[in-house]
Amino acid sequence: MFSVTVRDHMMVAHSLPDPFFGPAQGLHGVTYVVEVTWYRPELDEHGVVIDIGAATEQLGTVVGELNYRNLDEEPDFAGVNTSTEFLAKVIADRLADRVHAGALGENARGLSGIKVTLHESHVAWASYERAL
Amino acid sequence: MFSVTVRDHMMVAHSLPDPFFGPAQGLHGVTYVVEVTWYRPELDEHGVVIDIGAATEQLGTVVGELNYRNLDEEPDFAGVNTSTEFLAKVIADRLADRVHAGALGENARGLSGIKVTLHESHVAWASYERAL
Amino acid sequence: MFSVTVRDHMMVAHSLPDPFFGPAQGLHGVTYVVEVTWYRPELDEHGVVIDIGAATEQLGTVVGELNYRNLDEEPDFAGVNTSTEFLAKVIADRLADRVHAGALGENARGLSGIKVTLHESHVAWASYERAL
Amino acid sequence: MFSVTVRDHMMVAHSLPDPFFGPAQGLHGVTYVVEVTWYRPELDEHGVVIDIGAATEQLGTVVGELNYRNLDEEPDFAGVNTSTEFLAKVIADRLADRVHAGALGENARGLSGIKVTLHESHVAWASYERAL
Amino acid sequence: MFSVTVRDHMMVAHSLPDPFFGPAQGLHGVTYVVEVTWYRPELDEHGVVIDIGAATEQLGTVVGELNYRNLDEEPDFAGVNTSTEFLAKVIADRLADRVHAGALGENARGLSGIKVTLHESHVAWASYERAL
Amino acid sequence: MFSVTVRDHMMVAHSLPDPFFGPAQGLHGVTYVVEVTWYRPELDEHGVVIDIGAATEQLGTVVGELNYRNLDEEPDFAGVNTSTEFLAKVIADRLADRVHAGALGENARGLSGIKVTLHESHVAWASYERAL
Repeated sequence: MFSVTVRDHMMVAHSLPDPFFGPAQGLHGVTYVVEVTWYRPELDEHGVVIDIGAATEQLGTVVGELNYRNLDEEPDFAGVNTSTEFLAKVIADRLADRVHAGALGENARGLSGIKVTLHESHVAWASYERAL
Repeated sequence: MFSVTVRDHMMVAHSLPDPFFGPAQGLHGVTYVVEVTWYRPELDEHGVVIDIGAATEQLGTVVGELNYRNLDEEPDFAGVNTSTEFLAKVIADRLADRVHAGALGENARGLSGIKVTLHESHVAWASYERAL
Repeated sequence: MFSVTVRDHMMVAHSLPDPFFGPAQGLHGVTYVVEVTWYRPELDEHGVVIDIGAATEQLGTVVGELNYRNLDEEPDFAGVNTSTEFLAKVIADRLADRVHAGALGENARGLSGIKVTLHESHVAWASYERAL
Repeated sequence: MFSVTVRDHMMVAHSLPDPFFGPAQGLHGVTYVVEVTWYRPELDEHGVVIDIGAATEQLGTVVGELNYRNLDEEPDFAGVNTSTEFLAKVIADRLADRVHAGALGENARGLSGIKVTLHESHVAWASYERAL
Repeated sequence: MFSVTVRDHMMVAHSLPDPFFGPAQGLHGVTYVVEVTWYRPELDEHGVVIDIGAATEQLGTVVGELNYRNLDEEPDFAGVNTSTEFLAKVIADRLADRVHAGALGENARGLSGIKVTLHESHVAWASYERAL
Repeated sequence: MFSVTVRDHMMVAHSLPDPFFGPAQGLHGVTYVVEVTWYRPELDEHGVVIDIGAATEQLGTVVGELNYRNLDEEPDFAGVNTSTEFLAKVIADRLADRVHAGALGENARGLSGIKVTLHESHVAWASYERAL
C-alpha cells in the first residue's frame, strides 16, 4: 500500500458546551495542524498516489472553508460538539466528496482511502480514517 | 475509524545485559517520549473517542509508575530485557487494565484498541498495538 | 551564558479588529505552544540555571491564567490587539514579576534574562526577550 | 503487533519530466528524511523486533546507495518518474531483499512487514508498506 | 526585543565542486526548510513586529526565485559554492533589499534585523543574521 | 554573523543527589538530543562556517565519550551535579579544546563561538554558549 500525506493548518474558535469537557466548555480557540493521507494500492500512470501539489491545493480549499472562523456560529455544526475527532471527520468527508465530484480528476478514482489527523497541540491529536 | 493520541514522557535508567545489544549492555538511560493512541469505531455520546484531559491523566498515572526509576531494580521486570518495544507493551497493557477496571468509566467500553509508541531519540522509536 | 527552556501550551480565542489583519479580524482561535527560556551567566549553588520542575510549574501558572479564555473579554487586554508578539511580552512580564516577587526563591535573583516564544502553528511564531 | 522505526536521510537531485508535475519537471533536488518501520507479531529471543543498531546500519547502507546522487543518471531508474512514493518502494524492496538474503540473520525471519516513509519537507511525505 | 518567524521551503539541485566537500562534490539536491526571523525593538502601530501574512508572502516570493532550480545554472551563483550558509545570506540580503525598496511599506522601517535559517535535514542547519 | 548547527544524541544514566531535585535525586536516565552551533563572522575560503561533515564527526566523537554511560561513575564528574546545563558546558568545552588542539584544522581558527543545546525531552532543554 502506498500513501501520500500533506500538511496545512487552520485557526478557529469554538466552545464545547458539555460539562464533560471541563475548562473547554467556554469559548476558546485552537490551531489545528491538519494532515491528510491519501492511500492507493498501486501507483497511477504518473507514478504517484496523488500529485503533492494537487493534494495541497485540495486540502487548502477545504481548510479555507473553516479557517479564521468561530465554529459555534457555523450552521453546519449547529448542536454538535466540534471536537477534534469530529472535525477530522468533517475534513475527511469533504475531501472524499471532492474526489467523488471529480475535483481531483478521473485518475483519483484509484484512491482507496483517506486519513485526516488534526494536531491541536504538541501533545494531543486526533484522526479519522475512511474508505473512498 | 477514529483515534485520539496524547503524549507524555519518562526518564529512566536501565541496562540490556545481553551481548546482542553491544554498547547498550551497561547501565545507561533514556528519555521516552510516550504517545498513546486510543481507537474507537464510532464517537461516544459526547462526540469524542475519549476526553483528551482524561486520556492525559491516565497516561500520566501509568508513566508516573516508571518515571525517574532504575528499571533494573523494578521487581516487575526482573530477568527481562526492558527494550523499548517491551516497555511499549507494558504501558499499553497497564492502560488496558485500567480501562477494564473502569478507570475511564462505562463509556470507555466502546474503545476498540490502543497503540503505544515510545520515542527513545529523534531517530528511533518503537510501538505496540493491541485490541481492548 | 547558560539557559534553560521549558514548554507548555494554551488554547485561546481572540480577534484582531484592525483591517490590517485581513482574515484574522474576526473571532477565531489559536493554540500557542509556549516556550520560556531563562538566562543566567553562572550556574547557581545546585549547578543549574533554574530547576526545570520549578520553571515548568511557574510557566504552568502563568499559562493557566490565559488558557481556555476568549482574550477579547479579558479586562487586561481591553483595547489592544492581542497579537502573538504582544502575548509573548505579557507572559514574559508576568514571569518576571513572579521572579521579582520571590516566587522562585532567593536563588532566582541570579537570573539575568528571559525569552518567551509563542508558536501559533508549525509555520509561524513570535518572541519577546527582556532583562530581569 | 510490535514495530520499531529508525530514521536517516539522503540528499538527491532528480527531475520529474512529465507536464503533470508542473514546476518539478526540471532538475531540482530534495532531502528525504527516511523512516523505516519493521513489524513483528511477537518479540524475538532478545525481546526486540529488531536491534535498533542493526536496523540503523541496514538503513544506512541502503540510503548510502542513493545519497548525494543525481537520480536521473541512475541506470536502475531509467525511464521512470522517481517520485517520493516510488522511492519509498525502492528502499522498502531493497531492505526486504537484504532480510531475505540473510543480512539481518536468521532471527529476522520473524519480521512480518516493513513500511518506509520519505519526508520531502515539513509539509509533505509518502509511504510504502509491504509484507516480508 | 521582539521577533516574528515564518517558515517556507524550497527544493533545489546543486553541486559543491571542491574536494573539501567529499561526497557532496557531485550534483545532488536538498530540501531547505527556510525560516526567516524579523527583529524589532518596539511593536509598530498595529501591535506587531510585522504582519505574519505579509512576512509569509515576502518569504514565498524570495524562495520562489530559487525553488525547483538547479543552482549550478543560476547566473547569480556562477563560481561560488552554494553552501547552506551562503544561501542563508542570499535570502536574508534579498529580503533586506525588499524592505529597503518599500515592499513591506513605510512601517517596516522600524525593523532592526533579520535572521535566516536553512534546515537541510533533521540533523543539520545554517543561519545568517544581519542588521536592516 | 553566520552559524552552522549539527545534531546527535546520547543516552546516559545519572542521579542528582540533592533534595533540591525532588524525584530526580535517584538514579534515572535521559536521552540528550545534542545540538552544537558554530559561529563565524565571515565564511572561510570554502564558503562555509565549518564543513557539516566535519562538524558532525567532531560532535560524534565528543558525544561518544559519554554515550551509554552511568555518569555517576565517571571520574570527571565526581562530586558534581550532572545537570543538563552542566553537561552542555562539558560538551562545549570539549569541542572548544578540540578546535584549539587543531582537530578541525587551521581554518577553524576563524570560528568565533560555540553553543551547545541538550534537549532532555520534547518539553525541556538547556544551553551553554561561549567564545572560542
